Amino acid sequence: SGLVHIKNPHLDSIEEDDVLYHLDLGTKTHNLPAVFGDLKGNSRHKSEAAAPSPTGPCSPSLSALVAFAQFMHKELGVAGNGEDLADICAGPDWYTVYRAGPLLSVSHGMGIPSISIMLHELIKLLHHAKRQDVTITRIGTSGGLGIEAGSVVITDTAVDFSFKPQFEQVVLDDVVVQNTELDKDLAEELLACSKEIPDFPTLIGHTTCTYDFCEGQGRLDRALCSFSSEKKLEYLKRAYDAGMRNTEMESTVFAALCRLCGLKGESSRRCFCVL
Amino acid sequence: SGLVHIKNPHLDSIEEDDVLYHLDLGTKTHNLPAVFGDLKGNSRHKSEAAAPSPTGPCSPSLSALVAFAQFMHKELGVAGNGEDLADICAGPDWYTVYRAGPLLSVSHGMGIPSISIMLHELIKLLHHAKRQDVTITRIGTSGGLGIEAGSVVITDTAVDFSFKPQFEQVVLDDVVVQNTELDKDLAEELLACSKEIPDFPTLIGHTTCTYDFCEGQGRLDRALCSFSSEKKLEYLKRAYDAGMRNTEMESTVFAALCRLCGLKGESSRRCFCVL
Repeated sequence: SGLVHIKNPHLDSIEEDDVLYHLDLGTKTHNLPAVFGDLKGNSRHKSEAAAPSPTGPCSPSLSALVAFAQFMHKELGVAGNGEDLADICAGPDWYTVYRAGPLLSVSHGMGIPSISIMLHELIKLLHHAKRQDVTITRIGTSGGLGIEAGSVVITDTAVDFSFKPQFEQVVLDDVVVQNTELDKDLAEELLACSKEIPDFPTLIGHTTCTYDFCEGQGRLDRALCSFSSEKKLEYLKRAYDAGMRNTEMESTVFAALCRLCGLKGESSRRCFCVL
Repeated sequence: SGLVHIKNPHLDSIEEDDVLYHLDLGTKTHNLPAVFGDLKGNSRHKSEAAAPSPTGPCSPSLSALVAFAQFMHKELGVAGNGEDLADICAGPDWYTVYRAGPLLSVSHGMGIPSISIMLHELIKLLHHAKRQDVTITRIGTSGGLGIEAGSVVITDTAVDFSFKPQFEQVVLDDVVVQNTELDKDLAEELLACSKEIPDFPTLIGHTTCTYDFCEGQGRLDRALCSFSSEKKLEYLKRAYDAGMRNTEMESTVFAALCRLCGLKGESSRRCFCVL
């Protein structure tokens, strides 16, 4: 049906008062279908729910999120003054949500747990708003592997530290493995878009998702480092040979939740440095 | 020697230009010993570097971090107007750092990866500032297990989802297990402090650290839920019987990094709800 899937049988009983705690929204306090029901369906060059990483390790600042929303406001030809956009979740400051016409631009913080909290509440928001055919694009920066600095990597598959295309979801004290492939058509569509921009090196590749910005990414400049630069280079070579082109900290759970809940998802990140 | 340990042989070569990227500080751009060298040593009732969780799942807002710094400014009798405190890392907005005399108050975002990035850079900051005998106290809220809502749990040991007192640190594509016991003397000292405050239920217990705010915490109200409420209760009972009194998302890596780098560390969190 194109509707966002909520795979939670318990949710029916709280539908009347479902608090999206970290987004400062709720079914009792807000008329979510009225407020968010007019988000438009996916169309080329338009992402319905975009989740850039303004507080991620790769985006420079919150101002980047605001600038992105203002840029999209103008690009999409939305009526009104894009300079006046306001944070929809201005109360708590876990996340920041800006809206530019049919597009939601949401921050997600750094790391798998932080983006997971945001995505669960965003997915419930889209469910309550009865949205269909939602596309979600994650943008930000990353560390490149064997590619030119400044290149954009569009992720086809997110992999874990052992290069497996999986996300290990802990359920109580059990571990369930989820698939982390992203939408191949959307990846090709984004790649085609990139060709319209001069001097914008873009490629499709695998992305390694790590749990830290430290030894998990082979960094030599953190408070701890227990390996040699030779061992790091040998590891990065193996990653490159296995198809990895960049490294970041959120892609596996992003891919898994998009697949599980029926969102057309893609992640594209510029490499701000080369590891 | 009481100095903060940096266990990274590569750091010597970058000491002259070590950029603490996410804190917007660096050894070349800032005279760190001059700026942070006068942080005072540990003494009772004083935390030298306190890391509350203003953007964590448990603290209401950034205003809580500012209010805490202002409160401590007054409590510690620091000269000057506490109302004028400013964010030391005002450029990027990954973290917020306020200083009240000898105390640093730092936000850490939500989840293990986010606090890990902050701690690595905070530890390097303390190392460059040549600080000794540093105490770091993490504050915030959490979900309680079998205790009264509003109680404060002082963590003696942080455990993972399988109730093991360990943090699994990924190093390249290998996994190394780290100890997650916190400072027992500091826990007792904090407990003694709590007794000076009327109607302030406080206890020492184990804390479960999860990777999400969803199925890992047994929550029934997220976008996904694959277990029954009976199975949840059975899991929570097992957790309680094993000594767990609350659940949050950062304690294992906090405990591991404190131990590895010679920081006297403790985590105390108020239970804002009971699971």
